[in-house]
Amino acid sequence: MIGSKVAIRQPRAAALRARPSGRCGGVVGAVASGAVYAEILTIGDELCRGEIVDTNSSWLAAQLWERDVTVRWMTSCRDEVDDIRRAVTEAAARADVVLCSGGLGPTEDDLTVDVVSELVGATPVIDEPARQRMEQRFAGRIPVTPIQLRQVRVPSGARVHGNPAGLAPGFEVAVGGVPVICLPGVPRELHAIFESALAERLVALRDARGTAPAIARRIWRVFGRGESQVAQACAGLIDGVAGATIHYQVKFPEVLVKIVIRDRDRAAAQDRLAAVDRDLRSRLAPHLYGDGDDPLPEVTTHALVAAGVSVATAESCTAGMVGQLVTRAAGASASYRGGVIAYANEEKIRLLGVRPETLVEHGAVSEACVIEMAAGAAERFGVDLAVAVSGVAGPTGGTPDKPVGTVWLALVDRRGSGPPVTRRIQFPGTRDDVRTLAAWWALSMLRVAVLEGGHG
Amino acid sequence: MIGSKVAIRQPRAAALRARPSGRCGGVVGAVASGAVYAEILTIGDELCRGEIVDTNSSWLAAQLWERDVTVRWMTSCRDEVDDIRRAVTEAAARADVVLCSGGLGPTEDDLTVDVVSELVGATPVIDEPARQRMEQRFAGRIPVTPIQLRQVRVPSGARVHGNPAGLAPGFEVAVGGVPVICLPGVPRELHAIFESALAERLVALRDARGTAPAIARRIWRVFGRGESQVAQACAGLIDGVAGATIHYQVKFPEVLVKIVIRDRDRAAAQDRLAAVDRDLRSRLAPHLYGDGDDPLPEVTTHALVAAGVSVATAESCTAGMVGQLVTRAAGASASYRGGVIAYANEEKIRLLGVRPETLVEHGAVSEACVIEMAAGAAERFGVDLAVAVSGVAGPTGGTPDKPVGTVWLALVDRRGSGPPVTRRIQFPGTRDDVRTLAAWWALSMLRVAVLEGGHG
Repeated sequence: MIGSKVAIRQPRAAALRARPSGRCGGVVGAVASGAVYAEILTIGDELCRGEIVDTNSSWLAAQLWERDVTVRWMTSCRDEVDDIRRAVTEAAARADVVLCSGGLGPTEDDLTVDVVSELVGATPVIDEPARQRMEQRFAGRIPVTPIQLRQVRVPSGARVHGNPAGLAPGFEVAVGGVPVICLPGVPRELHAIFESALAERLVALRDARGTAPAIARRIWRVFGRGESQVAQACAGLIDGVAGATIHYQVKFPEVLVKIVIRDRDRAAAQDRLAAVDRDLRSRLAPHLYGDGDDPLPEVTTHALVAAGVSVATAESCTAGMVGQLVTRAAGASASYRGGVIAYANEEKIRLLGVRPETLVEHGAVSEACVIEMAAGAAERFGVDLAVAVSGVAGPTGGTPDKPVGTVWLALVDRRGSGPPVTRRIQFPGTRDDVRTLAAWWALSMLRVAVLEGGHG
Repeated sequence: MIGSKVAIRQPRAAALRARPSGRCGGVVGAVASGAVYAEILTIGDELCRGEIVDTNSSWLAAQLWERDVTVRWMTSCRDEVDDIRRAVTEAAARADVVLCSGGLGPTEDDLTVDVVSELVGATPVIDEPARQRMEQRFAGRIPVTPIQLRQVRVPSGARVHGNPAGLAPGFEVAVGGVPVICLPGVPRELHAIFESALAERLVALRDARGTAPAIARRIWRVFGRGESQVAQACAGLIDGVAGATIHYQVKFPEVLVKIVIRDRDRAAAQDRLAAVDRDLRSRLAPHLYGDGDDPLPEVTTHALVAAGVSVATAESCTAGMVGQLVTRAAGASASYRGGVIAYANEEKIRLLGVRPETLVEHGAVSEACVIEMAAGAAERFGVDLAVAVSGVAGPTGGTPDKPVGTVWLALVDRRGSGPPVTRRIQFPGTRDDVRTLAAWWALSMLRVAVLEGGHG
């Protein structure tokens, strides 16, 4: 296996782990799926010079995996006629379907249309809908030159996959009977073409082989538990669930749990997924915070706004990260009033009313200090909820009592009469890791407070 | 060409562009380099399922490119014996050197040592130095089991490249006379092995072909000008400079300029680079802020600390991002005192002393407001420098006068008697882009103020 940015923060073997239900035993009636193989080819000199990271391959691979299409090879090559020709030919000889990205732009080194046309005995022609779209977009402000028109060409006779997000259309030809689908390299455009039409087309190509089952799938998002703890909580979850696989993915600082259930009958797969969903939620509450695309900061802000709760922040080691995260979603101003970054201790006293004695007796990284910080922020900003963070982000400043990574958090909720909620956490990792984890914990505490509705 | 996360924010054709001096004319005595070809192979099921992005390939490709080794193919395959064998064999048949990553861990699906051993007629053996290192690391706390020992195996007779950052050593064998170098997939470990020994080995392999020139290279970092503006400022820069190429890379929100000069004589290449450096700096000042690994936030913090200047922040739309960035480098507390996140207008009045009339007459996104915010922060925190940001991050809230992306910044410097420095910028892009650009501009203004030494 190979690592990733994520894997830096994790023991290698734990970073990603797939557990087919077959290995857990107890699989009843699982569908043996006949593999449909895809290859992904990304084209561009800048890839081979390492100037950009190829995110298209992994994005496409994930889309295909979720649709039960197996990616066996992923290749990157330069903007060279011979290399592109060879790559497309070899991929088409090995796979059931080939997805290419890159080389569809206007410049001389965008060669995909020409090479693929030659391969299938076609000629490059202007795609009229794409040309009209270009005219509309340029609206007389930019001349439609022959160079610009290069990017609306497709091989004659190709099936065109229109580009809702840019100029160059995607297209599909058959090389030796194997569908070869070419897409622009700009990720936004590639995603848009895929989602608007191509996903369906790929499922049709897959089903034409008559071997693939229907799939029900969901991704749950978990914060506050490590991958191994999440995996332990899920132990046995899919035992006896036919056709189910479970995957864990560390997407720092959160963990994603992905379950796929395959069945010839889509409704049966969905029913089993619904049952798993209920079980999973009860096992992972309160750390499971969502099952959509939104990460914790956005989920928290939406919950705060929906509940009509006003919020303020008081930060030391995170130095503004909590404020920044809670305002990442548009519309945050309906809830968030502001915050204080009290990096120096005098500012904790001056701006938040922390008592000098507290700092002397307990230090700035202490339960007493964060309670006074949160209470000070709640009172000064006149808000319902205030959260405070103070910690030792490192790499220096640790003591035996409070080693690097020690963080105290407090949440004051003035809607009820409960005491402040506090938490001491010992975070692993770099300065950046500690600050990120601390800020996310602050958001998590806000989210839980909103869910509990002020009766804490 | 293919895009990247970076390219999302840029017109595709502009995202990355190489301009060999040959195309600019006037090249005198440029070295015609005989290409040495490398291939990169990354191994892992999780790559082909799209669960992680392959950052190793681009990292290695960049290292090779800078050393004048041309990467022609990059391939990813699954943890399957047949696929790994095929990938290594084909790569060795095409290239002068092959770099593999992944498949060196302890688990059953880590197969690289076994497959490569079989390919070269060797047997997997324990690398004794690596085993001793493992014993030391585990120190009796973790038993050294046969499974653990799997990851310190190498093919018998292989040249070992020790791993300073982890357990699994790298190694090198010859497949059909072509060096095949296998590295662990964890990026941190791969980088450590490369930097500790492998870089030198690759240069030796390259030079053994007797065709490659010496290389002098440097990367300059620019903030505050777009890629096309930077390219325009550099027009003609390397005209007449023998063996020089220039590349631009957008690494949002900054632009990197990379120049490589090749010559048989290393000293001659370095002399020419020094001359280019002087010219480049005069063309790009004051936007060129460094030529090292540190991005602007770290450069700024180090400059503030070195100058012994105290700093505070006053933020509205960035909501803490300036504070977070200025404290990203360890040791920031020697300069940074704290800040106010005045997200709601009442907090601008209450916490920073902005006059209500200012908000009524000019609005929160105005020169008058940011001046009062910065002045209020400077006075209240008792600091030398205070910077303030207020803007329309979007996606809503724009007006004809102040469309989405409008940001005002102000810097108050109490070391001198000059007036506040202000700046209105109209940023493109998403909410996140606008906030990031605004925060980086605030840091840029702090950096310039430190350079100017308070006489502004």
